[in-house]
Amino acid sequence: MELNTLRDLYLEQLKDLYSAEQQLIESMPQMTQAASDPQLKAAFQQHAQETQTQLGRLEQIGKMMGEDLGGHLCKGTQGIIEEGKEVLKARADSDPEVIDAALITSAQRVEHYEIAGYGTTVAYAKQLGETDAVALLQTSLDEEGEANKKLTAIALSTVNPHAGQA
Amino acid sequence: MELNTLRDLYLEQLKDLYSAEQQLIESMPQMTQAASDPQLKAAFQQHAQETQTQLGRLEQIGKMMGEDLGGHLCKGTQGIIEEGKEVLKARADSDPEVIDAALITSAQRVEHYEIAGYGTTVAYAKQLGETDAVALLQTSLDEEGEANKKLTAIALSTVNPHAGQA
Repeated sequence: MELNTLRDLYLEQLKDLYSAEQQLIESMPQMTQAASDPQLKAAFQQHAQETQTQLGRLEQIGKMMGEDLGGHLCKGTQGIIEEGKEVLKARADSDPEVIDAALITSAQRVEHYEIAGYGTTVAYAKQLGETDAVALLQTSLDEEGEANKKLTAIALSTVNPHAGQA
Repeated sequence: MELNTLRDLYLEQLKDLYSAEQQLIESMPQMTQAASDPQLKAAFQQHAQETQTQLGRLEQIGKMMGEDLGGHLCKGTQGIIEEGKEVLKARADSDPEVIDAALITSAQRVEHYEIAGYGTTVAYAKQLGETDAVALLQTSLDEEGEANKKLTAIALSTVNPHAGQA
């Protein structure tokens, strides 16, 4: 990794987000399948589509820069997804409502990770005068914010304090 | 991991945050040392102290519940910190301003991870009627939010678009 200029750092961040989105696309079907609440299932399905579009936006930015964004592994997202998989393993004996709450928690950690990533990357793009990239990244940032809010609303409406209690 | 009740999930989240704070306490001196901007160094130092207090709050909640929060590894934080270490490795040849920007990026990912974690955990504590824990967790959540805002302000005031350019 070379970090000599702000452009190097910007490119590194784009690669990180690209890997994050790719890992998410792989893991979202499993999360959707594990969810019980229809609202949550629908939210995951919608976000899986958004994630695909967000990956496309990053590819477009890569092309504009003449750079390949592949080949980097985002370890932050990898760690969060591994934690999410532990939840999926635990689900056999668990209350569906508790599992839904755990899935939401895991998904919100990813959303926040991406909000931090896109937030930073938009700021770099602005500073570098990359106007087209700013617009694309801002759209993805807004979508991540909306997805996170929707998950909070679902969590508040579906999980009750007695979930899983006899 | 057993996830049969909302309380199980709440406990799991507390353990996850406990591990996150512990890992942060270990990594913050290295980040503080690597930072060049005095404002950023000071912000990291202040947050290192806050992190210690936040760990203490979690210990207090563990005691109130009669549970040991140790022994769990938060893989999300581990991944983010590993990414941060890659930045530190790259710093030898790099522009200090670019390294500061990279450190801020890495720190903001951790802040957002913790905001998601504390946000969820406060919601669970409320639903479970754990009033004392709600107050403690909310204080830490507010501190994380403030720390994140401060990092954004430093990033906007210190990093310039020509950082690292000849």
